[in-house]
Amino acid sequence: MSKPEYTMLPPSTLLCPTPVVLVSSADPKQPEKPDMVTVAWAGTVNSEPPMVSVSLRKDRWSHGLITASGEFVVNLADEKIARALDFCGVRSGRDTDKAKETGLDYIPADELETAPAVAGAPLSLCCKVRRILELGSHDMFIGEVVSVMVRKDLLDADGKLHMEKAGLIAYSHGLYQKLGDVIGFFGWSVAREDVFERRMRDYR
Amino acid sequence: MSKPEYTMLPPSTLLCPTPVVLVSSADPKQPEKPDMVTVAWAGTVNSEPPMVSVSLRKDRWSHGLITASGEFVVNLADEKIARALDFCGVRSGRDTDKAKETGLDYIPADELETAPAVAGAPLSLCCKVRRILELGSHDMFIGEVVSVMVRKDLLDADGKLHMEKAGLIAYSHGLYQKLGDVIGFFGWSVAREDVFERRMRDYR
Repeated sequence: MSKPEYTMLPPSTLLCPTPVVLVSSADPKQPEKPDMVTVAWAGTVNSEPPMVSVSLRKDRWSHGLITASGEFVVNLADEKIARALDFCGVRSGRDTDKAKETGLDYIPADELETAPAVAGAPLSLCCKVRRILELGSHDMFIGEVVSVMVRKDLLDADGKLHMEKAGLIAYSHGLYQKLGDVIGFFGWSVAREDVFERRMRDYR
Repeated sequence: MSKPEYTMLPPSTLLCPTPVVLVSSADPKQPEKPDMVTVAWAGTVNSEPPMVSVSLRKDRWSHGLITASGEFVVNLADEKIARALDFCGVRSGRDTDKAKETGLDYIPADELETAPAVAGAPLSLCCKVRRILELGSHDMFIGEVVSVMVRKDLLDADGKLHMEKAGLIAYSHGLYQKLGDVIGFFGWSVAREDVFERRMRDYR
């Protein structure tokens, strides 16, 4: 393999792609006024117990709601809600009723007291805050997933989750992109050829 | 909007999509024997300074290398290296020379002493470990990005980075998927229509 040439850039947040999700929360003193905020600085950070991290600037309205309630919901995003999701990242819950402006609705989140989920999201991870880390521009909320709400149309008759049918979007260097072709599955590099062909048939 | 129905699932790691990257590192006592490991539990966690998190099980070979050196490199992945990347997640650096087995090469990483980068990756984030958090099954390494190496063919004549031309892959519920169509950019929901049309022209 000929070695490609590289150019150095200043340090920056160029890990791509990232998830892009709607994080919903509410203040226990005002549960009737929840907020949802767009987050790309999010990720899975632990498997047992399942934990996710969500990083927010201190001045984001949702930062206060999550700090007050100790709860948040990570709502995955598909193409249908992408435009509303973008709006929720540009406007502030401080002076905007994002549900009203976008047409998105809140629904109760399973196993949580205060934070709602976003109706229509393919899947919602209901989380309780376990740690908060101050990292500089952002505070990282580490949440333990206490329940998962999945839209019924993504489960087949056997109860198997078909995430590849959700039409999820990713975020990459300022762009929202659809997930495209499936090129393999975890372990495909060591799978027998007939196993690879059989398993890939579902995605072609 | 009619309210979709939801089913509850047990808590699990269903944040999708996630990045999927090759994390390269080496032990300062054996810099000639680096390792690279596949990581989907990774994300951007802070903007100023730029920081990423990478979660690894304690028994992964790379866990020891990163702990010993305090350095790692996050190498983004495109379709070309996807199969090699999968292999690096299935085998262990303890008993496998992954470079030899996959044909991938290491190159020196900018601003780091020990950890190498992976040749051919579209972009590599060179990181120094700032914190390690024990979360349960995984330890989370929070790294500050100290330099970014970008493959020259991804920069245009004006030095603008075209990440959308890198052919990046994402990971979603056990599947590797290509990034597909660009559907918008950050702020498009409040952009004027002519601005939207002009900016989107580059991606059609």
